[in-house]
Amino acid sequence: MSGKKVSERTIRRLSHYARCLRLSRIRGDSIITSGYLAGTCGISSAAVRKDLAFFGEFGKQGSGYEVDELLYNIEEILGTTDPPSVVVIGAGNIGMALIESGLAGTGGYRYRGIFDRDPSRTGLKCAGIEVQSISMLSAAVQKLGEVIAVIAVSPGEGQNAVDTAVAAGCSAVLSFTLEPLIVPEGVILGFVEVSTELDIITHSIRAGARI
Amino acid sequence: MSGKKVSERTIRRLSHYARCLRLSRIRGDSIITSGYLAGTCGISSAAVRKDLAFFGEFGKQGSGYEVDELLYNIEEILGTTDPPSVVVIGAGNIGMALIESGLAGTGGYRYRGIFDRDPSRTGLKCAGIEVQSISMLSAAVQKLGEVIAVIAVSPGEGQNAVDTAVAAGCSAVLSFTLEPLIVPEGVILGFVEVSTELDIITHSIRAGARI
Repeated sequence: MSGKKVSERTIRRLSHYARCLRLSRIRGDSIITSGYLAGTCGISSAAVRKDLAFFGEFGKQGSGYEVDELLYNIEEILGTTDPPSVVVIGAGNIGMALIESGLAGTGGYRYRGIFDRDPSRTGLKCAGIEVQSISMLSAAVQKLGEVIAVIAVSPGEGQNAVDTAVAAGCSAVLSFTLEPLIVPEGVILGFVEVSTELDIITHSIRAGARI
Repeated sequence: MSGKKVSERTIRRLSHYARCLRLSRIRGDSIITSGYLAGTCGISSAAVRKDLAFFGEFGKQGSGYEVDELLYNIEEILGTTDPPSVVVIGAGNIGMALIESGLAGTGGYRYRGIFDRDPSRTGLKCAGIEVQSISMLSAAVQKLGEVIAVIAVSPGEGQNAVDTAVAAGCSAVLSFTLEPLIVPEGVILGFVEVSTELDIITHSIRAGARI
């Protein structure tokens, strides 16, 4: 199963399926249909069945999927059964909003710290997490192990924050900044960019296609 | 050119190229190399050249690309030369952080309004934009034309906000909420979800691959 090459687009869909399944579990459902998954994820039932069939024989024709089993299998594919720790670099509006929103409902991710280089922000508290000096990042990463650093700093400070995260031993960075970033080979770089999502949506509107 | 089917992954890369090109233009560069684009976007030069060759003969071998011309052509492919208006629904932490961050450096997108159903928030000002009552959304969309609604409401209120945006005539919704959403046929639905990006990164870490 793990040998199959999975596209980023497929990973996105699997991630959405996992989210729907967690909500179903909270509601107490033990069986879910491809039609329900399709409706809540905004794609066709046929595409859902095709995705799930690609990874194995999860469901029985006509009788739906067992929520717990399907969720476990999807998390296995995603690699999120034991997810990395997440820290935030930058305790401005976005950083604080992230901590406040939290990661409940995700596959076990949790914010384990927020760091800022501005001494006037260290010590502030948000959702029970205290802003720490960026100088503490390295020690924190050493304790946490595998860490994804979410970069939420001011414009122009992105590369500096990324370099700090990489030097501290973070395995990956997920950037909220608009600027281009460089990471060394072996460090994963992802972007959460409103502007990119807007471009994808605009292209879809103009192409008359659903995404 | 517009007849070619372009994957979401490619659109993401083109969106990053466009961002780099805008920064280069601000710096006063008139020529850019595929190596520079590759470095700042974190992908290989060969992949950049392949992407750009797919859409036409933009560059001359060995002499780089003209920044203005390449940017114009990429924006044509993205459909962002005359982008839709963007409004935010939900004036909480995320919504206000978005307005404050603005969309400078993007392909002409601008936040044209922020709306909330909580009367205690209407009238608040952020980056020169005043929070309006959600009851004003319909009139605003009618004036603006093509509108993307960014959904930044509290957990549990997502579908209600989406229904309101669709009823008001928005062409697309971009959701920051974790919950699954349903839109009618013809309305584009996108997600900006930290948890999905974390899943993609985790899968890459575990698969030992660069994304």
